[in-house]
Amino acid sequence: MHQIEQMIEELSKLNSPLFGTDTLLTWERKWPEVESLLLIAELLKTMHSQNISTQIFDSGLAVSQFRDNSTRTRFSFASAVDMLGLAVSDLDEGKSQMAHGETVRETSNMISFLTEVIGIRDDKFLGEGNRYMREVASALDDGVSEGVLNQRPTVVNLQCDIDHPTQTLSDLLHLKKVFGSLENLKGKKLAMSWAYSPSYGKPLSVPQGIIGLMSRLGMEVVLAHPTGYELMPETVELANKQSQESGGSFLVTDSMDDAFAGADIVYPKSWAPYSVMQERLVHLKNGNLEELRALEHRCLEQNSEHVSWECNRQRMDLTNKKDALYMHCLPADITGLSCREGEVTEEVFSQYRVQTYIEAGYKPFIIAALIFASKTKNPAVTLSKLMEKKINRVQF
Amino acid sequence: MHQIEQMIEELSKLNSPLFGTDTLLTWERKWPEVESLLLIAELLKTMHSQNISTQIFDSGLAVSQFRDNSTRTRFSFASAVDMLGLAVSDLDEGKSQMAHGETVRETSNMISFLTEVIGIRDDKFLGEGNRYMREVASALDDGVSEGVLNQRPTVVNLQCDIDHPTQTLSDLLHLKKVFGSLENLKGKKLAMSWAYSPSYGKPLSVPQGIIGLMSRLGMEVVLAHPTGYELMPETVELANKQSQESGGSFLVTDSMDDAFAGADIVYPKSWAPYSVMQERLVHLKNGNLEELRALEHRCLEQNSEHVSWECNRQRMDLTNKKDALYMHCLPADITGLSCREGEVTEEVFSQYRVQTYIEAGYKPFIIAALIFASKTKNPAVTLSKLMEKKINRVQF
Amino acid sequence: MHQIEQMIEELSKLNSPLFGTDTLLTWERKWPEVESLLLIAELLKTMHSQNISTQIFDSGLAVSQFRDNSTRTRFSFASAVDMLGLAVSDLDEGKSQMAHGETVRETSNMISFLTEVIGIRDDKFLGEGNRYMREVASALDDGVSEGVLNQRPTVVNLQCDIDHPTQTLSDLLHLKKVFGSLENLKGKKLAMSWAYSPSYGKPLSVPQGIIGLMSRLGMEVVLAHPTGYELMPETVELANKQSQESGGSFLVTDSMDDAFAGADIVYPKSWAPYSVMQERLVHLKNGNLEELRALEHRCLEQNSEHVSWECNRQRMDLTNKKDALYMHCLPADITGLSCREGEVTEEVFSQYRVQTYIEAGYKPFIIAALIFASKTKNPAVTLSKLMEKKINRVQF
Repeated sequence: MHQIEQMIEELSKLNSPLFGTDTLLTWERKWPEVESLLLIAELLKTMHSQNISTQIFDSGLAVSQFRDNSTRTRFSFASAVDMLGLAVSDLDEGKSQMAHGETVRETSNMISFLTEVIGIRDDKFLGEGNRYMREVASALDDGVSEGVLNQRPTVVNLQCDIDHPTQTLSDLLHLKKVFGSLENLKGKKLAMSWAYSPSYGKPLSVPQGIIGLMSRLGMEVVLAHPTGYELMPETVELANKQSQESGGSFLVTDSMDDAFAGADIVYPKSWAPYSVMQERLVHLKNGNLEELRALEHRCLEQNSEHVSWECNRQRMDLTNKKDALYMHCLPADITGLSCREGEVTEEVFSQYRVQTYIEAGYKPFIIAALIFASKTKNPAVTLSKLMEKKINRVQF
Repeated sequence: MHQIEQMIEELSKLNSPLFGTDTLLTWERKWPEVESLLLIAELLKTMHSQNISTQIFDSGLAVSQFRDNSTRTRFSFASAVDMLGLAVSDLDEGKSQMAHGETVRETSNMISFLTEVIGIRDDKFLGEGNRYMREVASALDDGVSEGVLNQRPTVVNLQCDIDHPTQTLSDLLHLKKVFGSLENLKGKKLAMSWAYSPSYGKPLSVPQGIIGLMSRLGMEVVLAHPTGYELMPETVELANKQSQESGGSFLVTDSMDDAFAGADIVYPKSWAPYSVMQERLVHLKNGNLEELRALEHRCLEQNSEHVSWECNRQRMDLTNKKDALYMHCLPADITGLSCREGEVTEEVFSQYRVQTYIEAGYKPFIIAALIFASKTKNPAVTLSKLMEKKINRVQF
Repeated sequence: MHQIEQMIEELSKLNSPLFGTDTLLTWERKWPEVESLLLIAELLKTMHSQNISTQIFDSGLAVSQFRDNSTRTRFSFASAVDMLGLAVSDLDEGKSQMAHGETVRETSNMISFLTEVIGIRDDKFLGEGNRYMREVASALDDGVSEGVLNQRPTVVNLQCDIDHPTQTLSDLLHLKKVFGSLENLKGKKLAMSWAYSPSYGKPLSVPQGIIGLMSRLGMEVVLAHPTGYELMPETVELANKQSQESGGSFLVTDSMDDAFAGADIVYPKSWAPYSVMQERLVHLKNGNLEELRALEHRCLEQNSEHVSWECNRQRMDLTNKKDALYMHCLPADITGLSCREGEVTEEVFSQYRVQTYIEAGYKPFIIAALIFASKTKNPAVTLSKLMEKKINRVQF
């Protein structure tokens, strides 16, 4: 319990309220705000493990809108809002009238009369996902100012075309726990590397989000990928700028080995080339199925030239003390297990499997923290009150 | 808070308990009962805006059964039951065994062992929807009397072939707010008018429900539509009779201009002709797809003869002080926005957009009021208790 | 209220805690444990009928995974977890990434970070369903011991290839109520009989579960079916062994009349032959649609040789005082109602319809009891506390 009080004290000192805000890109949050979010997530996780209720809502809806399949994020979102007291309501565009040409503005208001949170996953189309979230957010702002809505739902970015804040903040919380503190990450080398996968069209949001967040900690961040697998230029420029400001470094290389050499942390993961995603968008909008198939074929062929981009024992042996922390957002494409040739060998993945599960386990609490921070005027005070009440989560 | 106490006092004086009842048609409710429902909805909305908990259920299911797509009503229902403390459970006939020939009686009991509310939307087939709701209601009555069910779930009509009570009561509450009181509506002219839409098969329940409710207030109700777009004769007769009783008037015309002339309120909205809906039902039952397509084609052609039935500036200028209140149940077919030619011009809609959103915003509270009234023996007393407890809905 | 105290006292004396256990087969539970489960279900049902809250969870998810259609079980599960305070979250393999080759281990952990219950229905494939549940359970055990999960979700078997514990325990509770006590069942004759149905591929879990549970009560259990409709041999051996231990008897016959003769309880129900289910599994795994169609055709032909296996008035007249209790898990195939020729005549079913509804009504409470027993260290104490608090379930 002492530990909880200390964290609340620490949170209180950061004095970085996020009341009424959406966190649609991590780099739009000041650093103490990021630290606050991590602390709130840790507090919620600790309280959960100690069977202490974290309900701050007596009622209210949490709308989830997934424009892509997802087990993990769907359950993370459901868990997060449930632990705060909200009920999930899916906005399924198949079931709803959105397919019939309703404007985003109208739907955003119509689903929000008693809604506290809208979680959106929209990572398929470059230049669309984050823009769509802002369109929803702006419609909600108008709804409040026009007297349509009693309250402003918080928009949670559950993955867009640019960033994946709930993933990268979970990753950062994992690093904080493994390395003991955020300060300890200073000077550490992190390799965000492309890796081979036989699949096609994986979003760029994780690598972009990782370099956009980890470049703020004074780390040596290396981005590695074959030529042709470039990320959105803005995110690379941002990482460059932020690494300089934070006293770290940022490097782009086309050698997985160079990236792994001496690394303390490796994050090998497949993604589609930016240019392919852009071409795909054009064909999708034109409904040109033949071109889409041709593009997929070309892209998989292009991928297959880079089968050697695998995280295996030899590469892990290049890392600092041969003992870098392996990270992945899951599910990983594991050679010989989920595919013939993949991102990582079964041997390496097995060694770090439990670590990746623990990494994933922060996500519900990060989502809950984003909501908690946006809904409470002084999170430290509200958390203290919950600790005073100390209602059992389960009556054993 | 003073305002809340006054409304509770007013509710108490109406002394019109609806405990244990379903409201499947508004005209089956006595007038003070309708007034009570509006007051309860207003109270719940005010309490929500003042962050006061309205939970009267500790647990219990609210089953939703939608036989038609719907964003608005789906979210309104989810919001309503959540604010009272219930959890939604969808009865999806695709997922369930209902498709396998189960009788309505059996399913109604099987889903109701711990269910407090069953919300049904069934507006597709003339002569079916309301009848189906009564069949469910009757099966539930039997379930209670036979000792199968501990409690009788309230059946909520979320739109049927005859009426759309949650829409029209929301509309009436909107009018009460805009005009200051129900009394102020006496003598006002309301034009319920057909309007052109390029779509096909829109239900008749809104126009029927509007004339069936608004004819009870001493208003001048005018129903306008082209020949061939008649409503169910019973609802027209009812409106006629009720308008006489209430000291108002009821008129049917085939001129949109006549309807708009001097109107205080206009409700221009498309619907399918009764005869087409009847023919459609026959083909649907016979599974005759070719006839269905032919009918749709014929119906759209018939519609297209009435493209001039549009709510535009010229028509709005015919209304009282050129300033009638425009109403719509949304989504509207807006000329140049959601279709080439539609129910309303973008210019007129824009002017009233916020008003239509506010109109829609009453629906969750109307649904909650229908449930609240059906579940509490003395709503005024229960509301007073909630005000005494004054539990925060959100702990800021 | 006195009645509730007595039952709690009785439960306390049984002293059979099931904390932290899954009940994947009823015969893996000691007899006093089975008695405890029935008592807890009765207590929860009584408390529900007396408007007393049974919430022991402040928050938490209950994951439902249905690999088969189901109205009854779906709503029973939703009701059960809701009355305890949990929120349902569906694991829909269509929506999720499970279809993309994720291992069961990974998914089981990923959906469980804040999950208290996982309910699984997987009855389609012989040798698979129960095995799958154990695989999930084992992954969850690992998750806890590896520090991935804060808590161990309880796995609830909502029907597998071998047993259907929530059905058969509901059936047993129904018998306890109808016959006054479990002791009174000693010496009674129960006929678990195959019956004709025009459908194909019905699971074996109900008849297997019934003989696996009812053979423990000192009853005369008779299993009747045409040659070729054998159950899994292990379950028949088990019934044999258990009936001897309990001082009852167990008999297999190919005559429905013999089974019904003098019976106190009859359970006529269709199922597919074991050998057909095995062959089906092979074809399904090979994706051999033509063979599957041929098998279905053959199987329906085989069924049609046994149309005379119907529960009708003549057969009921063979039972003890012509007045045996008719049982069914519903929905029944009723001759002339849901099919031309079925398991039971309309006349017999009508006589017992209400009884079968009441039988079904125990299921939500049995599911809740399985969870309650698994989550509370001393169920009697927790129930006493709920009775002391006596929070209203509905504030009338």
